[in-house]
Parts: sequence; C-alpha cells; structure tokens
Amino acid sequence: MRLEVTSRLAFEFPEPTDTIAVIQAAHATGQFIEREHLGLPNGVRLAESTDPVSGGRLLRGCLSGSVEIEYRATIRISPRLTLPANLTVAPWSQLPVAVLPYLLPSRYCPVDQFLRFASREFGHISPGGARVLAILDWIHSNVDYVHGVSNGTTSAANTFIDRAGVCRDFTHLGMTLCRASGVPARAVAAYALALDPPDFHAVFEVFLDGGWWLVDPTRLAPVAGMVRIAHGRDAADIAFLTTAGAVTQTGMMVSVVDLDAPRTDTPLDKPPYNPNTVEEAALT
Amino acid sequence: MRLEVTSRLAFEFPEPTDTIAVIQAAHATGQFIEREHLGLPNGVRLAESTDPVSGGRLLRGCLSGSVEIEYRATIRISPRLTLPANLTVAPWSQLPVAVLPYLLPSRYCPVDQFLRFASREFGHISPGGARVLAILDWIHSNVDYVHGVSNGTTSAANTFIDRAGVCRDFTHLGMTLCRASGVPARAVAAYALALDPPDFHAVFEVFLDGGWWLVDPTRLAPVAGMVRIAHGRDAADIAFLTTAGAVTQTGMMVSVVDLDAPRTDTPLDKPPYNPNTVEEAALT
Amino acid sequence: MRLEVTSRLAFEFPEPTDTIAVIQAAHATGQFIEREHLGLPNGVRLAESTDPVSGGRLLRGCLSGSVEIEYRATIRISPRLTLPANLTVAPWSQLPVAVLPYLLPSRYCPVDQFLRFASREFGHISPGGARVLAILDWIHSNVDYVHGVSNGTTSAANTFIDRAGVCRDFTHLGMTLCRASGVPARAVAAYALALDPPDFHAVFEVFLDGGWWLVDPTRLAPVAGMVRIAHGRDAADIAFLTTAGAVTQTGMMVSVVDLDAPRTDTPLDKPPYNPNTVEEAALT
Amino acid sequence: MRLEVTSRLAFEFPEPTDTIAVIQAAHATGQFIEREHLGLPNGVRLAESTDPVSGGRLLRGCLSGSVEIEYRATIRISPRLTLPANLTVAPWSQLPVAVLPYLLPSRYCPVDQFLRFASREFGHISPGGARVLAILDWIHSNVDYVHGVSNGTTSAANTFIDRAGVCRDFTHLGMTLCRASGVPARAVAAYALALDPPDFHAVFEVFLDGGWWLVDPTRLAPVAGMVRIAHGRDAADIAFLTTAGAVTQTGMMVSVVDLDAPRTDTPLDKPPYNPNTVEEAALT
Repeated sequence: MRLEVTSRLAFEFPEPTDTIAVIQAAHATGQFIEREHLGLPNGVRLAESTDPVSGGRLLRGCLSGSVEIEYRATIRISPRLTLPANLTVAPWSQLPVAVLPYLLPSRYCPVDQFLRFASREFGHISPGGARVLAILDWIHSNVDYVHGVSNGTTSAANTFIDRAGVCRDFTHLGMTLCRASGVPARAVAAYALALDPPDFHAVFEVFLDGGWWLVDPTRLAPVAGMVRIAHGRDAADIAFLTTAGAVTQTGMMVSVVDLDAPRTDTPLDKPPYNPNTVEEAALT
Repeated sequence: MRLEVTSRLAFEFPEPTDTIAVIQAAHATGQFIEREHLGLPNGVRLAESTDPVSGGRLLRGCLSGSVEIEYRATIRISPRLTLPANLTVAPWSQLPVAVLPYLLPSRYCPVDQFLRFASREFGHISPGGARVLAILDWIHSNVDYVHGVSNGTTSAANTFIDRAGVCRDFTHLGMTLCRASGVPARAVAAYALALDPPDFHAVFEVFLDGGWWLVDPTRLAPVAGMVRIAHGRDAADIAFLTTAGAVTQTGMMVSVVDLDAPRTDTPLDKPPYNPNTVEEAALT
Repeated sequence: MRLEVTSRLAFEFPEPTDTIAVIQAAHATGQFIEREHLGLPNGVRLAESTDPVSGGRLLRGCLSGSVEIEYRATIRISPRLTLPANLTVAPWSQLPVAVLPYLLPSRYCPVDQFLRFASREFGHISPGGARVLAILDWIHSNVDYVHGVSNGTTSAANTFIDRAGVCRDFTHLGMTLCRASGVPARAVAAYALALDPPDFHAVFEVFLDGGWWLVDPTRLAPVAGMVRIAHGRDAADIAFLTTAGAVTQTGMMVSVVDLDAPRTDTPLDKPPYNPNTVEEAALT
Repeated sequence: MRLEVTSRLAFEFPEPTDTIAVIQAAHATGQFIEREHLGLPNGVRLAESTDPVSGGRLLRGCLSGSVEIEYRATIRISPRLTLPANLTVAPWSQLPVAVLPYLLPSRYCPVDQFLRFASREFGHISPGGARVLAILDWIHSNVDYVHGVSNGTTSAANTFIDRAGVCRDFTHLGMTLCRASGVPARAVAAYALALDPPDFHAVFEVFLDGGWWLVDPTRLAPVAGMVRIAHGRDAADIAFLTTAGAVTQTGMMVSVVDLDAPRTDTPLDKPPYNPNTVEEAALT
C-alpha cells in the first residue's frame, strides 16, 4: 500500500525553548519512505537524528515565536497481518534482552498494580495471542472513547477507574494489562489511514512468537493502514512534541491518503487546515 | 581501588516462575572484573546475557522451590570524582539520542507533575552541576531516611509528600527533580563500600558536560566505592530480582570489602548471613 | 439476641499523646446496653462523651507509656433483617438533610471518580435494594479478602485496581459504588458475632425507603449478630483509635459471644489474648 | 457592614436530574439576612431546607432543560477579626465533639499523608494562631494562584506537588496542613466583597480558643467582607451545585456590594451578566 501522509503543526513559543519534534515516518522494517519533504519557516533550523535502536527520527532545535512545521511524505508499507490467536509467549529466558523493558511498568502503565486483576480476568486464557485478543475485547466492552476526560497526567490506573479516554489512554490501559499478563507491549505513534477525524494516533505492539504485532485498542483504524512514527514505553516516549518549557499549539492538520485507492473528490494538496484551532500538544 | 563483593540471596518460589536476577557487576567503563564466581544450587540453570546498550548482566531462568544464589567477585574500579558545581547542561539538540529518555517521566518519576516546583525552587540556580548539588541539598534537608514507610508502588510523588523513604525513594525523588530541571538522570544499582548495613544500593547519575556523574542522594556511601550493577530509568529497570509471579525472599547478605585497605577482623569468607530474614525483594 | 462483647487493647505511647478511643457499644436504636464495664490502668483517665448525632461514644484523654484498655458489655440487639431487593431510593429532595453527606465523596471513597463505572455496571438495575445487592455481588465476585495488601492510606480507588483487601477496603469500595449509584451509604464499626478470627469489623449501611440497612460486603459475619460501635463517612470517622502522634499497638483481643446460644467449651471470662501481638491500629 | 449580594446561575440539564443548590446566605451567628429574594423560572420548584447543624440552606429539586436561578439578598454582618497569633489549641479531650471531624482526613484533604511534613515544617511553631499564620505564610510563598491547572478531582496532595491552583485548592491545602498540625479546620463557601473577578469563594475556618476563625488562604479578599453560605469538611460538602447526573453551566454572575460604602458608578440592579459564558460548576 502506498500512503501520502501530510501533517502541519503550528506552535507559539513565548520564549526560546528546547524542542524535540517526532513527526517523520520512522526508518523501520515494513515501511519504505519513497519521498518526503519537511517545511520549516525561514530561519528555523532543526537538527535531524535517527534513533539507532528504534529507527524513530527526531527533529531538535531551540524554537521561539510562531513556528509552523509541515511534513509530507509518500510511504510504501508492507501488508500487516491481524494478530492471530494462536501466537505464543516465549519464556523470559528466551526473549531478546531488548524486549524485556516492555514487560516493566512505565510512567503511564503501573503494571505492578494490575497483577491480580490481570490474573483474575485473563489468567485462565491461553497466554499469547488469545490472551491479547481477550484484553482488547475487554477494553472494547468496558472503556468508552470520550474526548476531554483525560490529560497529560492520566495513567492507565485513572483510565481503568474512569472507563473512558482517547487513543493514548486506550493504549496505556492495553499495554498495562498485557504486561501484567506477561506479554511484552510497547507504544507506537502512527499516521493512520481512515482515522476520523485524522490525527496523530497512538496504538501498541505486542511481542509474540519472536515478532512485534501491531494492534489498535480503540478499533478506530485498520492496522494495515498505519505508518509508524516512533515507538517506546508509553506516551512519554512517543509524543510528537516534547519541550523544555511552555508552548501553545495553535494549529494542527493531519492527512493520510491511500494512493492506490480510487481517487475521491478531496484534493490532495489542500487538506482542511485551521491554524486557529488550539489543540492539546499530545497524542489523542 | 579493588573491591571484594559478595552477595547471597535465598528465595522460595511456590511454583515454577520466570525470573530475572541482576546481581553481577556490569561490564562498564571504569570497572574491571578481575574474577567472579556464581554459585547456584544443583540442577538450577540460569542463562547469562549482557545488555549490549547498558552493559548490565542478566541471569534468567525458570525457578521453583528454595533457591539460593551466591555471587562473589573481585572488581577493580577507577577513581570516581565528586560532581563539580561548574559542569553544564548541553542544549537538547546536542545531547546524544540515547540520553534523551532520561529526561522523561518514568514509572516512579512523574516528572510532568514537578515542573513548576522545580522551576520555583531550582530555576534561579545555574543549570548544571550547581543545580544538581542544590537538589541534593534540598533532599538532604527535607527528606528523612526511614525504613518501612515505602513499598514497591511508592513513587517520587509519594515521597515528596511523605518526606521519608529509603535509598530507592531518595533516588526517585532526586531523578524526578533533576529531569524536571532539565538535567538527564538515570538510576544505578550498585554494591557500595561502607554502606551500613550492607545492602543493594540505589543511586543515580546525571548527564553533564558529555558524561554521566554518579551521586548518592542518601549520602550514606561514597561514590568512589561503588560497583555498578545496572542502570535504567528507575527502580523498575534495575531491580535485583524481577519475577513473573509470587516469590518470597528468605535470606539476603551483601558484603563489600576494600582489598587495598588495611585488613580488619572480619574474615572475608564468612560474612554474616541470616537465611531466615525475610526481606522485601526490592532495592532499599 | 443477647451478646457478650469483650475487647482488650494494649498500646505503647512513646510520649503523652492526645487520643480518642471508640470501642464502646453505641447508644443506638435497636441495641440496648444491659451492663458494661470499662477497665483502665491505675491513674489513666479518659473522658466519656456521646456524639449527640450518631450515638457513638468517645473516650478521650492524653495517654503515655503502656496503656491497656478493657471493655466488657452485655448488649441486647433487636432482630435485624437482611436487605430486601425491593427497597427504593427516594428523590434527593425527599431525603433527610442529615443523610445527604453520605452521597458525597470522602477520604477513602472518591465517588467522583466512579460515576461512569457505576452507571455502566449498575445503571441498568432498578435503583434501590436490587442495585445494592448487585454491587455486593460484584464485590464478592471481583475482590479477594487478603491481609497485608492495604494500609491506612488505601482508598477505594486502590482496592478497585488491586482487587484485594480487608473489611475496611471492602466497605470503602462498597460505599463508593453505592454513592456513585445514587444510594446513600455510611461506614459502621461493629463487634461481629461469628467473625473468625474475632476483630473489630467494618461494614456499611445504605439508606433506602426511609431507613438505614446494614450490609457486610465481606460476607464474613451475619448482620443479625452485630453490635454497633460508631458510624461515619468512612474509616477515618470510625477508627477505634485516633491519636495526635505515634503509637504502637502491642496487643488486641476481641470476643463476641451469643448468650442465648447453647454454651460451648470456651470459658467466657478467659478469651485468648496475646499482649505481644503487634497489630496495625486500624479496622481490618 | 451591610452587603448586597446577587448571584445568577444558568444551567442546562439534558435530562431530569436531582439537584442541590447551595447559594443562599446561611443562618449563622454574626450575619443577619435583612431581605432576600429567590428567582426561579416559571414551573420550577425547589424545596428549601436548612441544615440544623450548620445553618446552611439547601435548595433541592429535580431540574431539566434550561434553568436560571437568581438569588438576591441584603445581609448585615458583624465585624470579624483577623486571626490573632496568640490563640491556642485545646487538648482533644476539651474540644466539642462536633469539632472533632474537622481534624480528620476528607476527600480532598488527605491529612494522613502530611503528618511528617507538617511536623517538620510547622512543628516548632507554637500550636495555635501562630502555627496557622505560619501555614498561611507558607502557602502564600509556595503556591501560585493559577486558573486551569486543577479540576474536580484535584486534592491537596496534587496541589502540594503542583504548587498552583485556585481558591478551592488553596483552601484544601490550608485545611490539610492545619489538621495535620493538630488544628481543626473546616471549609466555608462565601460571597466575598472585593473579590476580583467576583465569584463564589472558598475559604476556611480554624477552631482556636473555643471559636471558629475565618481565614482566606488566597489573600484575595478581606474576611471582614464575607457572607457565609455553607461550611463542611471540604469542597464536596459546600459545592454551590451538586447533581445526580450531567449538567452544563451556561452562565454565572456574582456581585457583592458594600451598602455602607460611598456609591460608585456601577448601578446595583444591573450587574454585568453573560448568559453564554460556560463555567465549570465548581467553586473557583
């Protein structure tokens, strides 16, 4: 599948602020960046680096005043299978060392608090794909997708009680329950085809039978149409913008178009964009 | 300095349990392992691996019943300087990519909640070594070293309110305040000379002027006499024992002896050891 | 039913400490105190008061050193019915003003966080007795009675995640879910016949059809055999001991005997008592 | 002092909802209601009750659709002294029973978590008025008045970490520190002269030398010009609107005028009012 990804972000920095933007498609197995373009205001410089471990790409610089960043890319992605139920979890001693941290608690995933619940609710299900699917079913049945009930400090514990949240919250709760059930899980930031409204998306991957498998706990977009931006332990690692100080997001537009699909009426080069929309600088 | 490190740990596993033990001296710059010995019960096998990124060493296996693990090593460590006040923090764009995660919140370090406090309390102090020293002074003046007030779910937020804890809690609060002040900080598990009573110790490192500097927020042991075991984002990453299920620690002994120092009366080969002591399986 | 209640508590106060002990049977409808005796060490004086609103009785004084308090009473209690499913909740405008606070959040009952869960899980059940019974069934199916997993700061939110606790935790969770479902609920401290092992017990009451109905969310003791000590918003209000400073509980014995039942072999005047047992000064 | 108080509140109830509004001046010592008027839409009925213990007045009913409530009163208040430093705290055994709950933790005041901090920071100061004044000074020096950083679940623990909040948060933190220091404290909702912008105000009272003394931890309005609406353990008890379901506040106006002061240009009968302003239904 070939996808045309566009994102435009506008920020207002009250003073010069160290900033990391992670908005580019990652260098990752299964996706090939055919072309890409990064648009920055005159005079703004961002240093590009690639995380050698994750393939995630960082744009770093000290920004001030009004800054608009545009990213546009054409990406070819390999077919991505839906998680099969019969995948199995390896014993810890056979997991790659690099996978082990994804069994541990992280800022938004207090795995240590969920061991008994995970055992009671999912312990009887065969460990592996079946258990992950049961966790995703549980979340689908018990958590509502609701904007505005969570914020940047909301953890999976909060969401578990409140039973509502956005993609970031669904991902944190899903990863927490997977890790508490013995399944390594890591957060993935993605551009997602068919997400409505278009936005940065947070999903996660589980490590089963020697590989990482992508799932979307919100069920809002097909995993086959996702372009990977970054992965990490939770939202803290994969935020599209991290700053050392205060910043206001003044506009945001995301667009993902399937170039292999029959054309629709929406002109590719003029996606809707409202520079005055104030959005929280966080994955939704 | 040459140090003789010994640790003996005894556990009771009610059923076969995936286990990771991290008790060996790390392969790390500044410390050289002259000899070492790992003692396991007959029939117990643990696979050894080294984390290629951190140099930490993992012992992994599925354990059951009563298991006693003994580690003994002679390690030569290079001189380690005390943190100078005049070190500086680099702009984010000049930090190595691998250092960036240590600016972020983690399970026990909710950095996002402490930005205003850090700015109010330490914002006026020159960023870098001076600010870290001010943070260490603040902790020394405001937090009591008290056993039994914290447990495995205690975060830096709890300790900040409760104003008491053990080395793990001091380290979490110290790292949280450093990261919230713009200084990368990572947790380090260590064998520490002159720690009384001897135990696994949790300390942390800050990244200043291109290098990591070790500090002990409890001020209980000199950084010059520490043997590094592992490092990571917080206690979750550097626990000496991580298990997939229930386990009871039934005994624990740690000993660190300076081989270059004049001999004392304590015979090296018979450190005190109480197999009946039940200790929490966590860094103190 | 006539019950013989005995409790002995032993404490060690390191320094003179303002103390409130609430261990006497309350002056309450449905229970009549035939005789009672309070035993205090020579020289210890406690002022007795009765809360005019709740009928709870307070013993207050400044205690120091080793103090043992003995309470012994014979109480006649009226028959107490099990909660019928067909009871109804009155509209708020018809509730007595004194009942309204029991709809609100309190220290250990963060009702505000559970509105969506309560609505999802119990909203379809007829408000009133049936809903309360459904809540009690849910707790019975989802929470384990386990000692040692909770402490004096554990709230219903913690227990909801951890799925385990003691009577105090069951009561907090039960009240939180009732209040979040529109049913007034208040905590009750009681002496409970047939509780094994004997101990101070925490249960709760719901206000339905104009009256308070007692329920035991742990299902460990029949409500018919309970002697009321005090009621309040949660455990903070009904602790058997509240002190202005540090105290160590050095012994505790509780005994409840049905005087109308055929005598057993246990001699009434010599219940087992271990003055060396250290117990947390909290309802279990 | 004679004060003219006006408040207008507009709400949208999506469905019929049990509601309690507490917006009338309380029947309380030190304030006399000369005249008052309650304006309700045609067809809306609210039952009036007075809490016999607190003197707070409740308006209760089942509301639906758009509802505007207007309250207008002329109140004569007695002079109110500023808290003197030399007031003392009575031993617990001499406190009125009705005062004791105000020493305990409540939903937003986790007193149990602050005992060590209170002792470290204020333990050396003479208990009583001087200690309360020191607590108020500490809050003034360490907490910023900032809108938008807190919400309906924010407790004193959150505010203590975040170091920012509104009047409700200042009051919760102040009461928590007072109770943890042995001083009974209760929350008070008030109409406050000279509060800018005018709004419902949350302050608190401490019980010293046999009486309750009003203080404003935000220092935004003089205690001499406050009309008492209600008191209770914390914001949960004194909210101006409590509902059994969802509600949107669509407008709000508060005005307090000193009738004894020289007239200004603002005509009394036409205070500014924006029916379209959406405000959180909570004390600010």
